[in-house]
Amino acid sequence: MAGSPRRTAGRRLQLPLLCLLLQGATAILFAVFVRYNHETDAALWHWHNHSNADNEFYFRYPSFQDVHTMIFVGFGFLMVFLQRYGFSSVGFTFLSAAFALQWSTLVQGFFHSFHRGHIHVGVESLLRVKDAGGSMTIHAFGAYFGLVLSRVLYRPQLEKSKHRQGSVYHSDLFAMIGTIFLWIFWPSFNSAPTTLGDGQHRSALNTYYSLTASTLSTFALSALVGRDGRLDMVHIQNAALAGGVVVGTSAEMMLTPFGALVAGFLAGTVSTLGYKFFTPTLESKLKVQDTCGVHNLHGMPGVLGALLGVLVAGLATHEAYGDGLESVFPLLAKGQRSATSQAMHQLFGLFVTLIFASVGGSLGGLLLRLPFLDAPPDSQCYEDQVYWEVPREHEDLAQGPLRAEELETRA
Amino acid sequence: MAGSPRRTAGRRLQLPLLCLLLQGATAILFAVFVRYNHETDAALWHWHNHSNADNEFYFRYPSFQDVHTMIFVGFGFLMVFLQRYGFSSVGFTFLSAAFALQWSTLVQGFFHSFHRGHIHVGVESLLRVKDAGGSMTIHAFGAYFGLVLSRVLYRPQLEKSKHRQGSVYHSDLFAMIGTIFLWIFWPSFNSAPTTLGDGQHRSALNTYYSLTASTLSTFALSALVGRDGRLDMVHIQNAALAGGVVVGTSAEMMLTPFGALVAGFLAGTVSTLGYKFFTPTLESKLKVQDTCGVHNLHGMPGVLGALLGVLVAGLATHEAYGDGLESVFPLLAKGQRSATSQAMHQLFGLFVTLIFASVGGSLGGLLLRLPFLDAPPDSQCYEDQVYWEVPREHEDLAQGPLRAEELETRA
Amino acid sequence: MAGSPRRTAGRRLQLPLLCLLLQGATAILFAVFVRYNHETDAALWHWHNHSNADNEFYFRYPSFQDVHTMIFVGFGFLMVFLQRYGFSSVGFTFLSAAFALQWSTLVQGFFHSFHRGHIHVGVESLLRVKDAGGSMTIHAFGAYFGLVLSRVLYRPQLEKSKHRQGSVYHSDLFAMIGTIFLWIFWPSFNSAPTTLGDGQHRSALNTYYSLTASTLSTFALSALVGRDGRLDMVHIQNAALAGGVVVGTSAEMMLTPFGALVAGFLAGTVSTLGYKFFTPTLESKLKVQDTCGVHNLHGMPGVLGALLGVLVAGLATHEAYGDGLESVFPLLAKGQRSATSQAMHQLFGLFVTLIFASVGGSLGGLLLRLPFLDAPPDSQCYEDQVYWEVPREHEDLAQGPLRAEELETRA
Repeated sequence: MAGSPRRTAGRRLQLPLLCLLLQGATAILFAVFVRYNHETDAALWHWHNHSNADNEFYFRYPSFQDVHTMIFVGFGFLMVFLQRYGFSSVGFTFLSAAFALQWSTLVQGFFHSFHRGHIHVGVESLLRVKDAGGSMTIHAFGAYFGLVLSRVLYRPQLEKSKHRQGSVYHSDLFAMIGTIFLWIFWPSFNSAPTTLGDGQHRSALNTYYSLTASTLSTFALSALVGRDGRLDMVHIQNAALAGGVVVGTSAEMMLTPFGALVAGFLAGTVSTLGYKFFTPTLESKLKVQDTCGVHNLHGMPGVLGALLGVLVAGLATHEAYGDGLESVFPLLAKGQRSATSQAMHQLFGLFVTLIFASVGGSLGGLLLRLPFLDAPPDSQCYEDQVYWEVPREHEDLAQGPLRAEELETRA
Repeated sequence: MAGSPRRTAGRRLQLPLLCLLLQGATAILFAVFVRYNHETDAALWHWHNHSNADNEFYFRYPSFQDVHTMIFVGFGFLMVFLQRYGFSSVGFTFLSAAFALQWSTLVQGFFHSFHRGHIHVGVESLLRVKDAGGSMTIHAFGAYFGLVLSRVLYRPQLEKSKHRQGSVYHSDLFAMIGTIFLWIFWPSFNSAPTTLGDGQHRSALNTYYSLTASTLSTFALSALVGRDGRLDMVHIQNAALAGGVVVGTSAEMMLTPFGALVAGFLAGTVSTLGYKFFTPTLESKLKVQDTCGVHNLHGMPGVLGALLGVLVAGLATHEAYGDGLESVFPLLAKGQRSATSQAMHQLFGLFVTLIFASVGGSLGGLLLRLPFLDAPPDSQCYEDQVYWEVPREHEDLAQGPLRAEELETRA
Repeated sequence: MAGSPRRTAGRRLQLPLLCLLLQGATAILFAVFVRYNHETDAALWHWHNHSNADNEFYFRYPSFQDVHTMIFVGFGFLMVFLQRYGFSSVGFTFLSAAFALQWSTLVQGFFHSFHRGHIHVGVESLLRVKDAGGSMTIHAFGAYFGLVLSRVLYRPQLEKSKHRQGSVYHSDLFAMIGTIFLWIFWPSFNSAPTTLGDGQHRSALNTYYSLTASTLSTFALSALVGRDGRLDMVHIQNAALAGGVVVGTSAEMMLTPFGALVAGFLAGTVSTLGYKFFTPTLESKLKVQDTCGVHNLHGMPGVLGALLGVLVAGLATHEAYGDGLESVFPLLAKGQRSATSQAMHQLFGLFVTLIFASVGGSLGGLLLRLPFLDAPPDSQCYEDQVYWEVPREHEDLAQGPLRAEELETRA
């Protein structure tokens, strides 16, 4: 058919161009018009004195339930994309999160420490590094810990399980449940540990802007690099969330709405390109098997987010933060540290995080290789049946429903 | 089998009779006993002074997160009912909502304008017409805009894609995720733009009542008109929500709980009958292809809701509203407009909405027919594969799980 | 293969041992270190005066929306595990909950009575028995009502529908949506009817602890009793929630965090063992067909919870409750009843509940056996098609997606 090549070329460019043009135009308008203390925003974000407004609509303060929804539903279902590993994904997330809730009580109050481990306490408290949403201490740490661990556990024969490594149609839809609940509650997650009031509002708002931009750039890039301009569900499920990761350090700072858009756009781009081009290399060259693409969603955007934190901290001034400087950078407010010094501390925080992650991942990997720990063989990876009773699909369902006459006859 | 015809007749009437009798009896009791300022309600809905109560349970103020859940999860999954269009439904809802969030900041504050476009600002602000939940400016406008657009884009050969136009078993279950989250958060949506406090409580309460009644009438009517008395998932997924649409204009007014029940019951009835009898005619006679039945969920209930607003506004008195008149009908409170005049303005608002929708839909349709815009051929509609990489279903899943012995042998 | 038996034995013990060791160690640390009025907790749970804190994170007060999510999403999807009964599970839950919302307005305010019927009002109000989360009046009552009813409706030929009684892979994943939303909002449910402030915080916190422990014990026991150490989805979907049931009576009391862990652990254990060993006996010996295992999730944990309430009420002292005694046990605070007397009342409440449930279940069963009520034949149980139009699965989906060339050719 004559029109086909042109149609294919058109399809490849149509969605990317639309997304990029719209995002570009919007970003310019943001740069020119949108400010935190624009009068509409001020009215909108003003929390305590709402009785005078005739039209109020809230960002809800982050709560246990919001973050639990994010973790149990979001993380649990995101990994259900694997066609034969859904029970394990949702089940083991459930088990781990339940245990983490108990353990967090012991460590540091009920929930405060749920989503951040000792490394966080170490880096943030001791060095006075800011990292509220955890670009460094959650995402970069977790990703590189896991990738180093995966390197130690490298399975050269894993292609024996290759046929189970992809998704099926409905498993991708389950995974989208995870993606969407993560997207909705990521602003709550990033703002939960920040200062009540202005700090939480700014964190949430920056996270929203960044997530919208990473969603747009992910769709644009996914179509651009896809076969015949087709979108890839793996990108949408994951890279669209990179905007939440990349502002994990700087969301509570005066990043500006325009800055949040740019950061999110870059994160979605880097993450999508990572899935397309870097993940295959990671396995073939570096012998790191990264099934879920944590390097693309958590690793690179986490490091980017840490560097963004260095930049935004280095630009902090008394003018830009006003009275809020005390809560965001207490040492700056007291004059005990300069902005440049804060930036250097942030950079050092990233360095320490990566060291801890590498050492921890290596030790963890060696521990898991202990012979008495039972691991599934290479041919049985990504297979629920190793750990779960899996129902035998019933022939009736495959055959389709009975016809009405059959129903009556059987009755 | 002798009992079969009687059984079929019995089944056809059993559920409808049960629903109708229960709803009738409940509605009568509502008319006689339930008032907004019944002492139990007053205690329940009293918001600010809760410290004396020993038993409090809240309607939560509408928040970003609630409405995001409604839009991303609700709208996203509702359309997944199509067997081969799930990726597009959830994916493109995700993309559009993310962009709408950015754009809304530019238009009018962060979220206030997210769910209402310029037409709303035009109608509500300039004419001083009330339409908080958007029966007119969201539902009727959106539906008739889309239906006119669909008329312009009419595809006579669309039956080539007929086999993909229905659902499969699991796609209907995914769609129910959408329905249920929409149902839960519709009261938040309708009450979000109304006055904080009493206004939001009344809006939410009326929406709840209306939704419960449309759910009951949908089940009753669906079984009544179904083959052998069987329920139809399309009705349950959509018409059950018509109660939220029909009170979009009047939910903040003194509709009374009984009025909300009646409105919801009618909306569910009209919507279900529309799916059964009107949608086929719409395509065959009027050449409008309405795959999701927007005319039944948004069009007719939206117009009904606008007319209900005319009626309830026309009945407004200082006695019924008390001090609340100022917030619901400010011009009436100031004596600048009579109730009848307000009613006429409401009717004129509907008229303007429908004109705008028709003109806008026509222009939009002509725009989309521009030759350089690439549309899928008639045989490839409702098909994710045009835009998405779709995984090949793996034979292992169809064959059912391995037996334990096979697992051990392969290991 | 030589290693197989050892591998199987290792797998059977690995997960249970891990769970039991971690839970044991954590429980000991809880017993030694964790107190309600530990300074971190006090800061965390302090509700009204949050302006001084620099790091706040909330348990959100229970709301309509939370409990609706629990009921519509949670209950609705939990029962979707049946391979051919998903439409009925989610649909009829939807219908019943919508009607219950209307009815609750008539009975006792808008939502207060939604999740508790007359029996609750009878037992709690008349006898002054505490049962906020409904171990007795919701769970034990509902379970034994239903089990007695199921005994009266016993179908000896039900094995004709046996092939439809299990799950398929994706129906189990849908059910996990139900489980997880129930888990997240169970603390809101148990705390909704308790006293605002400290009472709600304590109820929620105890419910969280109990749920985490029942989740851990369910995974441990499920693997321990499973074939080859495999986990069973039925256990995870249900028994993991038994921790919410077992503290339904005592969550608002001074159960202590350690007490909540122990109670939850026991409930998960009893529930899992019930699914494995008791449900088959229940059918074969007692002629009670308990498809969803309500005896394991609601019956036994409900009775256990009532007995736990007897114990904790009997141990109540002025020292332990301080000023809170007035809200939890008003008659004790006024000196009109001793702790022992309160415990006896609690025990009598359980007795009355079980009598009411048995009589009510018998009458309900006899009512449903009336000949004009149409029930599906034994061969058509667990089959949506009796009540619903069920889509015929399309051959295209089974065949997998088209290849790119086919797409172009067809176009």
